[in-house]
Amino acid sequence: MGGAVSGAPARLTDSGRLWSDLMRMAEIGALPNGGCCRLSLTDEDRQARDLFVAWCREAGLDVRVDPFGNIFATRPGRSKDAGHVLVGSHLDTQPHGGRFDGVLGVLAALETVRALNHAGIETERPITVVNWTNEEGVRFSPGLTGSGGFVGAIRAYDTSAIAGEGGVPFYPELHRIGYAGSSRFTAPIAGYYELHIEQGPVLESAGVSVGVVEGVQGVRWLSVDLVGEDRHAGTTPARDRRDAFMAAARLAVDMRRLALSLDEEMRITFGRVGVEPGSINTVPGRVTLTVDLRHSHVGHLDRMECEIEAAMAELRRGEGVEGTVKRMMDVPPVAFDAAMQANIAASAAGLGIAARVLPSGAMHDASNLATLAPSAMIFVPSRGGISHNESEWTEPAHVADGGEVLAQAVLRHATGRMGPH
Amino acid sequence: MGGAVSGAPARLTDSGRLWSDLMRMAEIGALPNGGCCRLSLTDEDRQARDLFVAWCREAGLDVRVDPFGNIFATRPGRSKDAGHVLVGSHLDTQPHGGRFDGVLGVLAALETVRALNHAGIETERPITVVNWTNEEGVRFSPGLTGSGGFVGAIRAYDTSAIAGEGGVPFYPELHRIGYAGSSRFTAPIAGYYELHIEQGPVLESAGVSVGVVEGVQGVRWLSVDLVGEDRHAGTTPARDRRDAFMAAARLAVDMRRLALSLDEEMRITFGRVGVEPGSINTVPGRVTLTVDLRHSHVGHLDRMECEIEAAMAELRRGEGVEGTVKRMMDVPPVAFDAAMQANIAASAAGLGIAARVLPSGAMHDASNLATLAPSAMIFVPSRGGISHNESEWTEPAHVADGGEVLAQAVLRHATGRMGPH
Repeated sequence: MGGAVSGAPARLTDSGRLWSDLMRMAEIGALPNGGCCRLSLTDEDRQARDLFVAWCREAGLDVRVDPFGNIFATRPGRSKDAGHVLVGSHLDTQPHGGRFDGVLGVLAALETVRALNHAGIETERPITVVNWTNEEGVRFSPGLTGSGGFVGAIRAYDTSAIAGEGGVPFYPELHRIGYAGSSRFTAPIAGYYELHIEQGPVLESAGVSVGVVEGVQGVRWLSVDLVGEDRHAGTTPARDRRDAFMAAARLAVDMRRLALSLDEEMRITFGRVGVEPGSINTVPGRVTLTVDLRHSHVGHLDRMECEIEAAMAELRRGEGVEGTVKRMMDVPPVAFDAAMQANIAASAAGLGIAARVLPSGAMHDASNLATLAPSAMIFVPSRGGISHNESEWTEPAHVADGGEVLAQAVLRHATGRMGPH
Repeated sequence: MGGAVSGAPARLTDSGRLWSDLMRMAEIGALPNGGCCRLSLTDEDRQARDLFVAWCREAGLDVRVDPFGNIFATRPGRSKDAGHVLVGSHLDTQPHGGRFDGVLGVLAALETVRALNHAGIETERPITVVNWTNEEGVRFSPGLTGSGGFVGAIRAYDTSAIAGEGGVPFYPELHRIGYAGSSRFTAPIAGYYELHIEQGPVLESAGVSVGVVEGVQGVRWLSVDLVGEDRHAGTTPARDRRDAFMAAARLAVDMRRLALSLDEEMRITFGRVGVEPGSINTVPGRVTLTVDLRHSHVGHLDRMECEIEAAMAELRRGEGVEGTVKRMMDVPPVAFDAAMQANIAASAAGLGIAARVLPSGAMHDASNLATLAPSAMIFVPSRGGISHNESEWTEPAHVADGGEVLAQAVLRHATGRMGPH
C-alpha cells in the first residue's frame, strides 16, 4: 500500500480476471436478456457451486461444506489460532436476476486470495472465502438461510424451519445436488467482509465507485385499517362524509412530510392499498394500506410508528374515520463494526478511490453475520439503482474498484494493520 | 289554503292513507330486513303496477300505457286543451332497495288526486299521475328508461338502445308482464312535479321536512392515470422516488381543498383506486383513480376539471410522476323551473312547513322531463341519508308534509294560482 505518493498506487487484484469470472459464472442459468436464473439448490446452483469449488481448489484453498450447504474455502494464515477473516456472499439468484447480485461478493473474495497468492503475500490470519446458501429465499423460506443457520438463527436438520416453495424439501434437495456437508466451521472469526452491489441509486447519484456501508436499515411493516362509511357520491356533502380514501391520502402526505423532516434518509412506502367498495360513485368506506418504514436508527422507527398511531386521532377528528395500526414485522437495524468501516474507508483512500458512507436498504448475509462477529460491507453502484432484474448492471471500473478495496481491506485486517481487533 | 291565520291550516291529503298505501306496496317484493326488491319488468314489478292501476281506476282515473310501459293515469280538467300537470316517479326498486325511493312520488301523486276527489275540487288543467319504467337501471341499461323514452332520448322499439342484464330483452319482458302499451301521451304539459326522498343527509341535518330542489347537479367522471416507477422500498431514498401513490395522495388532498374553497357544495370523490404493483416493499409505480365531480353549475365542474389537468404538471415537477386525465362521462346540470320552485316554496309556507332549497345529488326522472317541460322536485328527508338499502327510512310526519306540499303545489298549478305559466 506504499507508493501512493505519485500517481495511481499499484493494485493487488486482476480486475480483468474478476470480470471474466463474473461473465463465465453468468453463463450458468443465463437468461435471454443478459440476466441469470440460478435458484438455490437447482441444477444451475450445483453447476455454479462446482465451478466455484474448482476455482477455489485451483487457488489452493481448503474447501469444506457445512450442513446448510455453505461452502468455506480457506487460505491458511501464519498463525493457526488467529481468527479467520471471512469474505463472501451468495451465488444464487432471483428468477429474473442479474449477473452481480451476490455473485460479485463471492468472486471478488476469490480474487482477493488469488491476488495474495500471485503477489506471494502471507497473512497472519487465515482468510476464508464463503458462499452462503439460499440468500434470495425464492425456492425456500426464510431467505438468508445459510448465513442464518451459520449464526444459529436456524437449527441444522430442523426440517420444520425451512419451507420449500410448493413443498419442495430443503435437505433432500441439498443432498441431491451434492452439497449436504457435515463440516462445521468452528474457528474464531476476526471479521466478515461482504462486497455487494448497492441495488439502489445513491452511489451512482453521488458519482462515487465505492460505498462504506454503515449498517443495514431496520425494517418495520405496519398495516393501517381505516373505516369510514360508504356513501353516495352525489347526495353526500363534504361535511357529512367519512371518506376513508381521503383519510388515507392525508395520512400519506402528512407522514411523508414528517418522515423527511425527521431525517431525509427515512424511507416510507405505502405499497399495498385497497380501497372499498371501489365504485366510481361511492365514497370509499374502507381503506387498508401497508407502511414500510426503514431507517438505521431504531429510535427513528419508533418515532414514526408513534406518529402514525397519533395520526389516527387526527383522522378521527378531522375525517370521521376510525383507524387502527398493527405492526406486521420488525427487523431491528444492524450497525456494522466501526473499525472495519474505518479500515474499508482507509483502503479506498489509500487507492485514491472516492467513497461514501451509506446505509443498506436491503438485508444481506452480513446482517446475520453481524450478530456473531464484527462485520462490514462494501457497496458498488448499480446502474439506475436497478436490481432483481435482468438489466442489473455495474460498470467494469466500479467492479474493479470494489474488488480492489475489498482485497486491500482484507489484507490489512489479516495482517493486523487496521488497528485494534 | 285559506284559514292559515290561526293554528295549522287544513290539509287536503289523508296522510294515513298515503302511509298505508306505501306499506301495502312494500309487501310486493318484500325483503327480510324491511326493504323491497321489485326490479323492473319482473313479476314483482307487474304486481306493483297492477295494484297501482287498480287504485288509479278506483280513483276514477283514465289509465293509458305507452310503448315504454310508462303508465299515465289522468284526472280530467275543466279545460280539455289546457296543458296537463304531470305528477309521478317510479315503482321499481334496487335489488336491496327501500320502501320509499320512487314509490313515494307515485303514491303521493295518486293521493293528490284522491284528495281532490274527496274535497270535490275541480281544476282547470288535467292532472296526470305517472309511473316511469325502469328508473333504477338494474335489469336494463340505461336507467331512467321510461322517462328517457318519453322525452325522445331513447327511440321506441329500438332494441339496440336498451341493454338487458345477462341479455334479457326489454320489449319481450315488457310484453310478458302485460305493459307493452301503444298509447302515446301527446297532450301539452304545463309542468312535471316529482316528490322523492332526498337520499342524502342535508334535510335531516337542517331539521326541515321539505326540500325545494333547485336542480340536479351535473356529474363529471374523470379517470386519472399516474405513472411513476416501481422501486425497492429499502434502497431508494425519497429524492430518487417516483411514487405514484404519493402523487395520488397529494392530488386527492389538494383537489379536495380546492373544491371546497371554490364552493362547499362541490362534491369530489375518488371512488376507484388501483395501486400497482401492490407489494408491501415496492414503491408503487402506477396508480389509476377515478374522480366523481358534482355541482349545480357547469362552470364549477369545468373549473375543477381544469385544476385537475393543471395538477398533472405539479405532480410531474414535484413527484416525477406522469399523469394523464381522461373524461369518462359528462352529464350537464339541470336547473328546475323557477316559477314551479316558487310555487312549491309558497305551498310549504302556506302550510307552515319549514323548507330548504337544495340541489339533487342524484339523477331522477325529472332530469329527463326538464328537457321537455317545466319541471320541479320536492324532497323529504332520508334518515341518516341512507338509500339503496333496506334500512332506507323516512318518518311518517315527513311523508305527510311532503305529500301535502305536493298536493297543494299541484292544485295551485292546475288552478292557475301559481303565477304566469
